[in-house]
Parts: sequence; structure tokens; C-alpha cells
Amino acid sequence: MQKEAPEKTLENFLHSQIPLTRAMDLRVESCGPETLILTAPLEPNHNHLGTAFGGSLATMATLAGYCALWTALGDRNIHIVVRRSSIEYLRPVTGEIRATCCLPSENKLQRLRKTLSTRGKARLTLDVTISENGSECVRFSGEFVALL
Amino acid sequence: MQKEAPEKTLENFLHSQIPLTRAMDLRVESCGPETLILTAPLEPNHNHLGTAFGGSLATMATLAGYCALWTALGDRNIHIVVRRSSIEYLRPVTGEIRATCCLPSENKLQRLRKTLSTRGKARLTLDVTISENGSECVRFSGEFVALL
Repeated sequence: MQKEAPEKTLENFLHSQIPLTRAMDLRVESCGPETLILTAPLEPNHNHLGTAFGGSLATMATLAGYCALWTALGDRNIHIVVRRSSIEYLRPVTGEIRATCCLPSENKLQRLRKTLSTRGKARLTLDVTISENGSECVRFSGEFVALL
Repeated sequence: MQKEAPEKTLENFLHSQIPLTRAMDLRVESCGPETLILTAPLEPNHNHLGTAFGGSLATMATLAGYCALWTALGDRNIHIVVRRSSIEYLRPVTGEIRATCCLPSENKLQRLRKTLSTRGKARLTLDVTISENGSECVRFSGEFVALL
């Protein structure tokens, strides 16, 4: 029996646990080893101007950071929550929404795991970008907390 | 014939123009004269922990700010876009999501309208709070731009 791709496993988890990701028709294009990429079509995510809705953009960026940390830690017993974030809307997105987050480096992950094992919780800041046709449209930075 | 309540007009506008607001089952509880309040039930907006999903919270807060400015300006020829925002998740929301934004004061609105008429665009920062049982759960601040 063929093993399910990790992208499909993550996508199924999101669709089954977070109903809004189904309504957005969110897809996991890639989850590792270096980048986490989420996509969503414009149709269920447009605003009154026909471009991507700010709420969908903020959601995609937040989830990309969340999923990048989830993928990097690879331990389902660790809870991850978003603590705070900031977002800049630089240009309208006129087609598919594509959110990219670089997975944390091995160094950062080691420090995170060490803090997590001694204190039971640890913080990490992750940056997410939504680009279209080579131009950055949305810039997001989020602080995530991992909890044992 | 009875005139439709402004809350219903705004809610219908959001549901018809921004499909995600329908998926979230978003309601306009109040739009003025002093506060704008949006609500959404937990069911379509929960996460994998059974509390309100961060994406739904960010979307509700962004829309509350947007709608507060839209309501305060009362001019459908003015475009409003969100330029940047920051959000803090202080406590999980365990039931209905309720986002409250104070409408800008008459002084601020007068300055905004003046800048808008001379420069064709003007910025305004608005704060939104999501509270539950008297405790603040989410604190949001957004910079919105009005364009002629």
C-alpha cells in the first residue's frame, strides 16, 4: 500500500479539524523540507472588489506559519498556538493565493526543543510571504508558541 | 413599506460580495452610531482544539474595522482598504465570536474627509476588541486607507 504524501495528510487534517479551510478550498502544495506552501483559489476568497479578501490573506498567512512549525516539530503531542502577528498588505492579489513560509533552521529548532523540554513552552517567530507574478503582495510575521 | 435596518443592509452586502462571510455565518449586530459589532457562531469557525480559529478571529477583527469606517463615512463612492494590522491573541474564545469597534469620533472623521478631498486618500487607525464573558480575548489594531 502506498504511503500518503505528507501534503495530503496535512491537508486532510486541516479540512477535518478547521471547517473554514474547507470553505476556502485551501490546499497544501508543499510541506518541507525547506518551505511550506499553502494555496487557495480566488473564487471562494474574493472581496467586493474581485481581489483576494484581506481575511482570507490573513488566514492563509497565519496557517502557513502554524503548519510550518507543526511540520518542523513533527511531534503531534506538541500544541502550537499563535500568540501575536502583524501583516502588511502591499498589493492586491488578483488570482490564486499562495502563502510561503520557510521552515525554521535546525539550529532554531534545537533551541526551541531545548526550551520546550525545560520550561514546557517555547516561542518562535516565523515570516510568511504571499506573492503573485514575482511581486510580494502580503508580508506577515507571527509569533507562535509551542506547548507540551 | 418598512425601511430595512442598516445592520441588515450591511450584512447582505457582506454576504453577497464576500463569500467567506457567508461560510463564517457572520452577522452584523450593530452598526452605529457609536459602535460596530460583528458576531459569528463557533461551529463554522472552530479550530482543531474546539476553540475559535485564529483565521476567523483575524478576519472578524479586520472586517469590524473595515465596516466601522464604511459606516462612519456613509459614502459608497469611497473605497476602503486595509493597509496593515497587528493582532494579539490573549485568551482562547470558546463560544460565539463578537468583535467590537468604536466608530471614529466626529473630529477624526472631519480631518479624514478633509485629507481625502485634498489628496484623494487618507489613513485612519482603528482598534477592535474580541471579548468573552467580560475578558478581552483578542486585541487588534488596523490601519485603513480611504480612497476617492
